[in-house]
Amino acid sequence: MMLERWVPLIGCLKSYNRTLLSQDALASVIVTLMLVPQALAYALLAGLPPEMGLYASMLPLVLYAIFGTSATLAVGPVAVAALMTASALSSFATQGSPEYVGAALVLAALSGLILIAMGVLRLGFLANFLSHPVISGFVTASGILIAVSQLKHILGVEASGHNVIEVLSALLNQWQQVNAITLLIGLSVWGYLWVCRKWLKQWLKMAGVSASVAVLLVKAAPISAVIVTTLLAWLLNLEQRGVSLVGFVPSGMPTIALPDLDQSLWLGLLPAALLISLVGFVESISVAQTLAAKRRQRIDPNQELIALGMANLGAGVSGGSPVSGGFSRSVVNFEAGAVTPLAGAFTALGIVLSTLLLTDLLAFLPTATLAATIIVAVGTLIDLPAVKRTWLYSRSDGIAMVVTLLLTLMHSIEIGIISGVLLSLGLHLYRTSQPHSAVVGRVPGTEHFRNVKRHTVEIDERLAILRIDESLYFANARYLEDTVMELAARSLSLQHIVLTCQAVNVIDASALESLEAINGRLKDAGATLHLAEVKGPVMDHLKHTSFYHELTGQVFFTTYEAWRVLHHQGDVLSSPALAANEARQVANSHQPPSFVDDSVDKKRGE
Amino acid sequence: MMLERWVPLIGCLKSYNRTLLSQDALASVIVTLMLVPQALAYALLAGLPPEMGLYASMLPLVLYAIFGTSATLAVGPVAVAALMTASALSSFATQGSPEYVGAALVLAALSGLILIAMGVLRLGFLANFLSHPVISGFVTASGILIAVSQLKHILGVEASGHNVIEVLSALLNQWQQVNAITLLIGLSVWGYLWVCRKWLKQWLKMAGVSASVAVLLVKAAPISAVIVTTLLAWLLNLEQRGVSLVGFVPSGMPTIALPDLDQSLWLGLLPAALLISLVGFVESISVAQTLAAKRRQRIDPNQELIALGMANLGAGVSGGSPVSGGFSRSVVNFEAGAVTPLAGAFTALGIVLSTLLLTDLLAFLPTATLAATIIVAVGTLIDLPAVKRTWLYSRSDGIAMVVTLLLTLMHSIEIGIISGVLLSLGLHLYRTSQPHSAVVGRVPGTEHFRNVKRHTVEIDERLAILRIDESLYFANARYLEDTVMELAARSLSLQHIVLTCQAVNVIDASALESLEAINGRLKDAGATLHLAEVKGPVMDHLKHTSFYHELTGQVFFTTYEAWRVLHHQGDVLSSPALAANEARQVANSHQPPSFVDDSVDKKRGE
Repeated sequence: MMLERWVPLIGCLKSYNRTLLSQDALASVIVTLMLVPQALAYALLAGLPPEMGLYASMLPLVLYAIFGTSATLAVGPVAVAALMTASALSSFATQGSPEYVGAALVLAALSGLILIAMGVLRLGFLANFLSHPVISGFVTASGILIAVSQLKHILGVEASGHNVIEVLSALLNQWQQVNAITLLIGLSVWGYLWVCRKWLKQWLKMAGVSASVAVLLVKAAPISAVIVTTLLAWLLNLEQRGVSLVGFVPSGMPTIALPDLDQSLWLGLLPAALLISLVGFVESISVAQTLAAKRRQRIDPNQELIALGMANLGAGVSGGSPVSGGFSRSVVNFEAGAVTPLAGAFTALGIVLSTLLLTDLLAFLPTATLAATIIVAVGTLIDLPAVKRTWLYSRSDGIAMVVTLLLTLMHSIEIGIISGVLLSLGLHLYRTSQPHSAVVGRVPGTEHFRNVKRHTVEIDERLAILRIDESLYFANARYLEDTVMELAARSLSLQHIVLTCQAVNVIDASALESLEAINGRLKDAGATLHLAEVKGPVMDHLKHTSFYHELTGQVFFTTYEAWRVLHHQGDVLSSPALAANEARQVANSHQPPSFVDDSVDKKRGE
Repeated sequence: MMLERWVPLIGCLKSYNRTLLSQDALASVIVTLMLVPQALAYALLAGLPPEMGLYASMLPLVLYAIFGTSATLAVGPVAVAALMTASALSSFATQGSPEYVGAALVLAALSGLILIAMGVLRLGFLANFLSHPVISGFVTASGILIAVSQLKHILGVEASGHNVIEVLSALLNQWQQVNAITLLIGLSVWGYLWVCRKWLKQWLKMAGVSASVAVLLVKAAPISAVIVTTLLAWLLNLEQRGVSLVGFVPSGMPTIALPDLDQSLWLGLLPAALLISLVGFVESISVAQTLAAKRRQRIDPNQELIALGMANLGAGVSGGSPVSGGFSRSVVNFEAGAVTPLAGAFTALGIVLSTLLLTDLLAFLPTATLAATIIVAVGTLIDLPAVKRTWLYSRSDGIAMVVTLLLTLMHSIEIGIISGVLLSLGLHLYRTSQPHSAVVGRVPGTEHFRNVKRHTVEIDERLAILRIDESLYFANARYLEDTVMELAARSLSLQHIVLTCQAVNVIDASALESLEAINGRLKDAGATLHLAEVKGPVMDHLKHTSFYHELTGQVFFTTYEAWRVLHHQGDVLSSPALAANEARQVANSHQPPSFVDDSVDKKRGE
């Protein structure tokens, strides 16, 4: 049982049979066809030799199949991870050098160890700090960066830079060196893939092909472009005409070896590895959960961390680049009928066979073809309407998104994402530090209480009922003090302040201290503090504090109860003859200790 | 009007008269008597020449009187600011050097500019991030650090260090150099002040002295110790017997001059200045608010930032150390009857006179007397029972407090406070990232819904009602997805999931995206998502989103409404003959668009 929890494949194998096998095998063939060009393309994007993309599609897939909980997540090289890898390595070595390759392996292994550690320590919640607007802005910016970075391969020139502006200006400086044949190949493939993506599915449907087969054929379109342009390059000897080709790809298997153990390199790559891990995990888990839900299956986020970690560690010791769950390949895997994680292992087998058999041919593949494949693929990452949508829904989320997007594009990936995270944290805290609050009055004839500024309500000059629409914690504790004391300073006739707490889920130690201060200050000012509608768990904590025992007023079950008692009490007190006696009666009839306990019991633990 | 907002003193002067003047003047005499030894002592604590404490009690007090909104806050050198000053300067210059003094002036001016900027930009809320447990842990640790740092003056030895352990071990190494007369003076003063603090008030009361006069006499006790030990040192020529005295104090006024404008020094002192500003502001504002509340007066936090900023800037250009609002002096000021900020200006006048007349005498004041004064004074800062109290109230607040306390003591002031802030932020986010949630069922025969795990409630297998007790935002958006999808995966007969949102004050863009994902996934799984008890402002935002339009279920006004419709609908559907027709009727009668709008209108803007 314990072993099965850590190695979900065991449970899967128990019920494995020939039907499942044939379904998984079919899916793996289709994913392999899709993965071969992608593996080469993303290695190119990461600035690594093409075989590293293939190696990253072997052992990591097998390891994910053993440890993963998703039946359909297709792990391997992905565009965003490749971009982040290139960005991380650029400050440690020059592209193409052995140090660069070595650093990529360290990056993969380090990401793997980070993910495994997060899984074992159940720190998956850390990924929550990448808010959706930050991820979305980052992914859109990455898509643009990737597309721009591939233009040089389509134009057949050399151009590089750390951000969009640098790359574009480098391209402009090189326009006279553009290679016409390369450009022709690049634009043709680009146009072909774009047409396939846009219309092929409709055409196939009209021709009577079933919807899911149509999806698979569309996704397999790049392989046809790869085959055609490779054959053209070989037959027409295009390399001699200045067309850049993939070149020699070793046909053997990767060797298993520990990556470079240089301490300063590991420390230097740590921040980048952390970001790649978190971004990869967030993307993988959302794909996996979306697909799992379609079949009412469960994904275990912490086990996914371990599985993705093992996959990356596997990449690091077997010559591969960092890996993650790919969105489009996972969808294809799902549509093609993958039913267990073994489909991934079979895909790895497909990649092994391709590497053994096809590398002589792949040497003739033009890089322009791969670049066009990448550009069309990352088109799905770029979602500019989301910026407007987010902006309209929530100004602060919109700001976080735009800042992440622009900084990623204009400055760097790391700064973009870190600024986005800090900004969304800051904005969240700022928002909750000044929570919505309202002085409420009674809607005449009812037990409802509404904002006095928006509704015609009954009020009592000696009584202010304040509703705070937020949990009370350190960031807004002082705001609470200011609000209450301003209320008290505004009117000298005020005798009672009631805090209505139906939206208060937590009162932390800072807020408790503020409540104590408020209670004491109101007492000095001759006014009384009451609470109403305190939730059970909050009350459980409050009951053992000195604040509760020193509270000058009462804890009411409902706001109406508070109004009824205090409003009435006021009437009585204003006719001095009766005051002392009746007031005591009123108080006795409404505030026995049992009443408070009752309200606590009724709400406790909910 | 505008001018009066920025310079509150103008409003105060308009109604100033002889009665107010005499009250303020009396209070200022008493505060002056208390401030003279404190100003010298805190200069000693900060490692600065004694006159800097006096200078910090002149111009800064006048500036606070002009710009401040508190009638009773006594600004000037305080213990914690002095400790933080010593700690900040130790890495820039050696104590006693002109560079050290220059850096202190820069620190004061920089703190002033930071505070003014925060006031103008209305950034006072930043102080909220210093949660109460962090401040409390820090202040207790500071009290211990200060007390320990003064032991060397009582023993008459040289000993220094960056934390408690270093200082204590330095003291142990020096025990053979202890000066007996110094020790005698130190312990006598210590004992005398301790007895005064503990019993003098009671004795005076028994002797028929009024309570407030008794308080003032107790607070003035240090001045008697200063007079007696100074006279002893002068008459017995104690300096020749190895007793360390304050020594020469220039009797002139400070010169007004810009502090050193060295850029690297300003940048280097920036983090320390920020911490001193924030801590000083938090302490000042809470003292000011506590005292103001006793007379139902208002403190304007942003104006206080400007006033404290001007005071520190004033200290920086007139040879003073960083200043802040002092707790005990403010209480004395209040008790002695100060009624306007002019009392502070009169205190400044008192310090000017003392500096002109008394400096020849003060030269004979033993430092051991000052050290004993400090040790007794900081006793009120040390509040160890608060650690236990906080720990019992909230584990996470307790952790933040203990970590701040220990790191401040063992490592350094900056690391202690920064770790505390980050830890309390992290713990807050962790807590809200896994909010309390409960599947609820109906309490039979009522419209109440309670946790199924705690109460005997009616449930429906096809219907799960989930209550989330927290606003939905990025940190818990994925938790929501996990929770709902786990619920859906647990039972295949589940047809409806209702999210009850009475505790949800905000749904940010990340949570909206999660709700969309949940809605889509439940749809794929053949289940319907409903919402209930959505608040008005939240609904206002939701209404314009695609999530709202694609929601497979309904938005119910109350949980009971959801139960009634869906539970009934289920019954009907289970008798297939009637299903289609009646179900539609049920749906029509309960979910017209007007119903949803009604619920929105009723709650909007509340």
